[in-house]
Amino acid sequence: MPIELKSFTKLLYSEINTKIMYKIDKTDINIVNALLEDGRMSASEIARQIGDISERAVRYRIERMVKEGIIRVSAIINPQAFGMDIYADIWVEVESDKILEVAKKMTEYENVTYVASSLGEADVSIQVVAKDTAEVYRFVTEMVRKFPGVRRTVTSIVPSILKDIYQWRIPNSVVENVDE
Amino acid sequence: MPIELKSFTKLLYSEINTKIMYKIDKTDINIVNALLEDGRMSASEIARQIGDISERAVRYRIERMVKEGIIRVSAIINPQAFGMDIYADIWVEVESDKILEVAKKMTEYENVTYVASSLGEADVSIQVVAKDTAEVYRFVTEMVRKFPGVRRTVTSIVPSILKDIYQWRIPNSVVENVDE
Amino acid sequence: MPIELKSFTKLLYSEINTKIMYKIDKTDINIVNALLEDGRMSASEIARQIGDISERAVRYRIERMVKEGIIRVSAIINPQAFGMDIYADIWVEVESDKILEVAKKMTEYENVTYVASSLGEADVSIQVVAKDTAEVYRFVTEMVRKFPGVRRTVTSIVPSILKDIYQWRIPNSVVENVDE
Amino acid sequence: MPIELKSFTKLLYSEINTKIMYKIDKTDINIVNALLEDGRMSASEIARQIGDISERAVRYRIERMVKEGIIRVSAIINPQAFGMDIYADIWVEVESDKILEVAKKMTEYENVTYVASSLGEADVSIQVVAKDTAEVYRFVTEMVRKFPGVRRTVTSIVPSILKDIYQWRIPNSVVENVDE
Amino acid sequence: MPIELKSFTKLLYSEINTKIMYKIDKTDINIVNALLEDGRMSASEIARQIGDISERAVRYRIERMVKEGIIRVSAIINPQAFGMDIYADIWVEVESDKILEVAKKMTEYENVTYVASSLGEADVSIQVVAKDTAEVYRFVTEMVRKFPGVRRTVTSIVPSILKDIYQWRIPNSVVENVDE
Amino acid sequence: MPIELKSFTKLLYSEINTKIMYKIDKTDINIVNALLEDGRMSASEIARQIGDISERAVRYRIERMVKEGIIRVSAIINPQAFGMDIYADIWVEVESDKILEVAKKMTEYENVTYVASSLGEADVSIQVVAKDTAEVYRFVTEMVRKFPGVRRTVTSIVPSILKDIYQWRIPNSVVENVDE
Amino acid sequence: MPIELKSFTKLLYSEINTKIMYKIDKTDINIVNALLEDGRMSASEIARQIGDISERAVRYRIERMVKEGIIRVSAIINPQAFGMDIYADIWVEVESDKILEVAKKMTEYENVTYVASSLGEADVSIQVVAKDTAEVYRFVTEMVRKFPGVRRTVTSIVPSILKDIYQWRIPNSVVENVDE
Amino acid sequence: MPIELKSFTKLLYSEINTKIMYKIDKTDINIVNALLEDGRMSASEIARQIGDISERAVRYRIERMVKEGIIRVSAIINPQAFGMDIYADIWVEVESDKILEVAKKMTEYENVTYVASSLGEADVSIQVVAKDTAEVYRFVTEMVRKFPGVRRTVTSIVPSILKDIYQWRIPNSVVENVDE
Repeated sequence: MPIELKSFTKLLYSEINTKIMYKIDKTDINIVNALLEDGRMSASEIARQIGDISERAVRYRIERMVKEGIIRVSAIINPQAFGMDIYADIWVEVESDKILEVAKKMTEYENVTYVASSLGEADVSIQVVAKDTAEVYRFVTEMVRKFPGVRRTVTSIVPSILKDIYQWRIPNSVVENVDE
Repeated sequence: MPIELKSFTKLLYSEINTKIMYKIDKTDINIVNALLEDGRMSASEIARQIGDISERAVRYRIERMVKEGIIRVSAIINPQAFGMDIYADIWVEVESDKILEVAKKMTEYENVTYVASSLGEADVSIQVVAKDTAEVYRFVTEMVRKFPGVRRTVTSIVPSILKDIYQWRIPNSVVENVDE
Repeated sequence: MPIELKSFTKLLYSEINTKIMYKIDKTDINIVNALLEDGRMSASEIARQIGDISERAVRYRIERMVKEGIIRVSAIINPQAFGMDIYADIWVEVESDKILEVAKKMTEYENVTYVASSLGEADVSIQVVAKDTAEVYRFVTEMVRKFPGVRRTVTSIVPSILKDIYQWRIPNSVVENVDE
Repeated sequence: MPIELKSFTKLLYSEINTKIMYKIDKTDINIVNALLEDGRMSASEIARQIGDISERAVRYRIERMVKEGIIRVSAIINPQAFGMDIYADIWVEVESDKILEVAKKMTEYENVTYVASSLGEADVSIQVVAKDTAEVYRFVTEMVRKFPGVRRTVTSIVPSILKDIYQWRIPNSVVENVDE
Repeated sequence: MPIELKSFTKLLYSEINTKIMYKIDKTDINIVNALLEDGRMSASEIARQIGDISERAVRYRIERMVKEGIIRVSAIINPQAFGMDIYADIWVEVESDKILEVAKKMTEYENVTYVASSLGEADVSIQVVAKDTAEVYRFVTEMVRKFPGVRRTVTSIVPSILKDIYQWRIPNSVVENVDE
Repeated sequence: MPIELKSFTKLLYSEINTKIMYKIDKTDINIVNALLEDGRMSASEIARQIGDISERAVRYRIERMVKEGIIRVSAIINPQAFGMDIYADIWVEVESDKILEVAKKMTEYENVTYVASSLGEADVSIQVVAKDTAEVYRFVTEMVRKFPGVRRTVTSIVPSILKDIYQWRIPNSVVENVDE
Repeated sequence: MPIELKSFTKLLYSEINTKIMYKIDKTDINIVNALLEDGRMSASEIARQIGDISERAVRYRIERMVKEGIIRVSAIINPQAFGMDIYADIWVEVESDKILEVAKKMTEYENVTYVASSLGEADVSIQVVAKDTAEVYRFVTEMVRKFPGVRRTVTSIVPSILKDIYQWRIPNSVVENVDE
Repeated sequence: MPIELKSFTKLLYSEINTKIMYKIDKTDINIVNALLEDGRMSASEIARQIGDISERAVRYRIERMVKEGIIRVSAIINPQAFGMDIYADIWVEVESDKILEVAKKMTEYENVTYVASSLGEADVSIQVVAKDTAEVYRFVTEMVRKFPGVRRTVTSIVPSILKDIYQWRIPNSVVENVDE
């Protein structure tokens, strides 16, 4: 069952680069920071922490930011909770004219947590989670390398991830320039 | 201001590999799937969608899964909403005995969305977001390469990300083996 | 004697990204195309070729485009006319924190026709012209590699250049969208 | 519409290596330096700056040097003036016997500002300009890599160009040896 | 005549990862250390060296450890005793979907002492012994590279082996944690 | 506690290349094959299997072959029996004049099962066993890369070993040429 | 017209490794050294320089050493005397099973001064001489890369050769061990 | 004892590129071809084979060609005749400013048959002969890598040399253009 890519994803060949209209302010940033700590914090709790704002305003602002594609609030599953202790990066070299097909196929595999196209040495780079290195190897040899257009792979174990996208914060340079 | 790494992160040198005790079931998986769609869906709405479960039970199970480190619910900020259109992977080669120091330093930079140690050609790999390639370049030359212990970097533009960790689902192999 | 970089050059760290205000039209494009053929074609000859425009208007438009940084009209010296038959690309790997210094130094050498910073495997890439491969080698070993901060070079002969920047034309996609 | 390569270009397989007959002198060099500053400087202005030469002599010498292939005077279009802010180098590895065909095809694309054959790791190297990295990527995946004979590409962003061919001057070693 | 792989080998895709039930103690470790010195030391001699154990108990424990797959006692042939002085590592790059076939074939060649699959740059890595480098070369060009699916090989002479698997001892961390 | 290298090991810089004097025959080969199956098979059982030879002669021949360095009989410990499921190859690049020191140091680590010097891209190559990839990583970053003279490492997981030195047999070409 | 390889060449797959029977002494070495200086020095002049030997004995010893394949006396043509100033090394990667065919073909080209098979990254390495880099390039693209089985080439200019095989002398270690 | 480089060697930085004045003709080429077969063929025998030329003329022409640097006649020692069966190429990467020193030092080692500077990945490339791979390794680790300025080496065994410089002939293109 292929994953349906959400609009939040940075789309390939996004012809319509719809401009984000909503102009965030300091209050929005405070709300986002609260949701970074706990995505399920209630609007009333957020309002209490920030002060000078109603629960309803908090709820409205969250909805707006989600709708405008500024943030997304989502569960993130911990692969290790399911015994998937091994992370591996796989660089995929692809027959000259099959890059997009291969990249799309990779998103469908359930071991795959990340798929990106690349302009460097590799054509497509993916990250997988697995129970052990044998499962990584089986995935590489029986899935990735059997898919037509895949020419070569280099796999590298990722011993630890110290920061991931859901820990990224709005940069200070942005924070300092928003309206009070 | 350095980022405090959350316990959810796969820690480097995690001596105490605390076992996860909570045994999830089909209902938990349904809840997780709902939260993947919308991390702020109310417990009552989730209960309604799943059926045969009280709002309170949903709330309890979410709390439990978060506490046990099975899931995390979090805002994820869209860098593009702040004009940060450019994604780049940077592979960092480090003086033999400085890997951990460099990796930790990298997590502190606000352009950096991902930091991992690697067992392959690079020692540390990071992903950054930036307004344009000039900002990427400035970051590489003035931040990363000026940090002691960094020997060499190779930077590669990431034209598109087709799948990321917050889109990853519990694999079918796991789903099929949980209790009803 | 170091070369003074003209404002036309894509500057490193250009903080003031002065917006180009002048909006070109079809007539401007016709003028540019004429100047691509012969940069010294007189305004009156251009006016005659294009039709429906005065010599004075042609002169004004050229001045304007030059002033706005849209085009530059320049002599381009043919190195082969001076017996410099050999072109070589040199990729320079630089000590982590010396990229800009090295790049700037390279612009000063009179054998060097091109200097760019790079985000790939090399840190700085240059092109040189020389009388023979011995001169290329002498330049690499006695100039480039003796400059502090240069760690390694890879030199590659360029047997032929089939197109260069002064042969580049305004893309059709742009041409089609300008006003009549 | 393929570009017609001008005779100024260093031709591939140039069987007839016509010798340049015209012997330049110090006055010619002064004229060339003036035209490097401003390719449209009038002959009378150049004569005035140099002194001891008639406007007509200046005009004659320029014509001669152009005709002999010593210099070319041309408009050079600033890609950034058309919103093409991104420069990228693309190294193209080609099926063993398709090098020339691929190189020639590359000259025809309107994003391409530079095409050269290479004797190093790559077979053909090109430089492209584009509005953003997405356009670079689209060009690589849909144009370059779809052309028969292209086996592999490595793309690298060029954050800044500090010197280009139209800024190259006649080397001092040459200047010192010409007749007064 | 293909070699039958012994169960001791770390099997590819070992679906049944039979757990080892036997819990070794300090006495077992003493026995193993004796057998590392001399695999044919008699049970009575081992009993005498260790003390406080009967010959019969020693014999029983060895049998048990072999049966459980904890140790193997085997002759190891010295290739140099047969004039095979040259050791070489060969990295084999394989057509995307032929890894397992190629790896299996390699085990059958009598020059080959080691075959492993790899997740790095190579797909399969082997070690060979030979009388001289000419025999290595003949093996590479006439055997390995003629086998369908082999795309490329890189061969590297191994001037000396300072430690091999039969010299590996039970790590102290394990030794310290076993029961007296 | 450093490992004392046995004389069986292919020694570095072996000045005295003592010639092996003992000339093996078909009977010896039969004995070796028996010992490859089971290194602890009794001399009487071997004599019975081969036929036409006394137990004493078998014992004498084994002793002789061991003494002459033709074979070694040894326990080989299965790292997986101690929970060490992960095998990894580590290529070590060493400061120009430290190769031998680094190689010797590597033999002392208890995770290391194989150490060899190399004439290819790496200077020293080792194989390690570990409980998990985190232990591999800890070993690389805290042991190998902290040792003076180590400049760089590349680590690659070995998903499966299909053949190892203790499974190598006397080549047919040798077998066919020995006396009856 | 293919070159007939002389028996002096280190032959590929030399099954008959004919042992050299003639045992050289100090006098032979003196003769060889004289012939290294001037291959056409007359036997009488050599006899005079060495002393205590007849012209006839010198002649006999030279003939013997040539016949036994110890030395060869030959003209060596200086490519630069024919305007072939450019030396280039070409590394050729070959389809898995075509190494020998490609290597043999390369020996036939008249630009080629050296052909060897290799066990490293390349499969065949050659050296060529040419009038200029354009001729090198034409040779690579029209000859080498058009030959079936050639997959890829990397060409590198050789700016200077400081020592070549005809300047190699008998090592001191050999000289010291021969009989007076 | 360092080798004195003969003037025949293509010198580094040869400022005085003395032009070769002697114009060879068909007769010279016939003489050279005879000397390629046998460098010690007597002038009278050469005269007999060619016809229509006196012995004295042959002698004069040889002397002239040697003096003009067109040919050299020399003994070439067969390393295999001294038990040096192993050929290896060593690529040497050198500290940025030590290329020439390292290259010169390499010419002095008696195992070294070839030294060249390079403009590709390596800085200096050498070829060595040795009794066995252990001697190659000892040479690399104890000589080459201990010399100050040497940063890294990659060594590759050369299984066979199919053509060498002393087998190179005057190209047909040259032969066809000389006077009768």
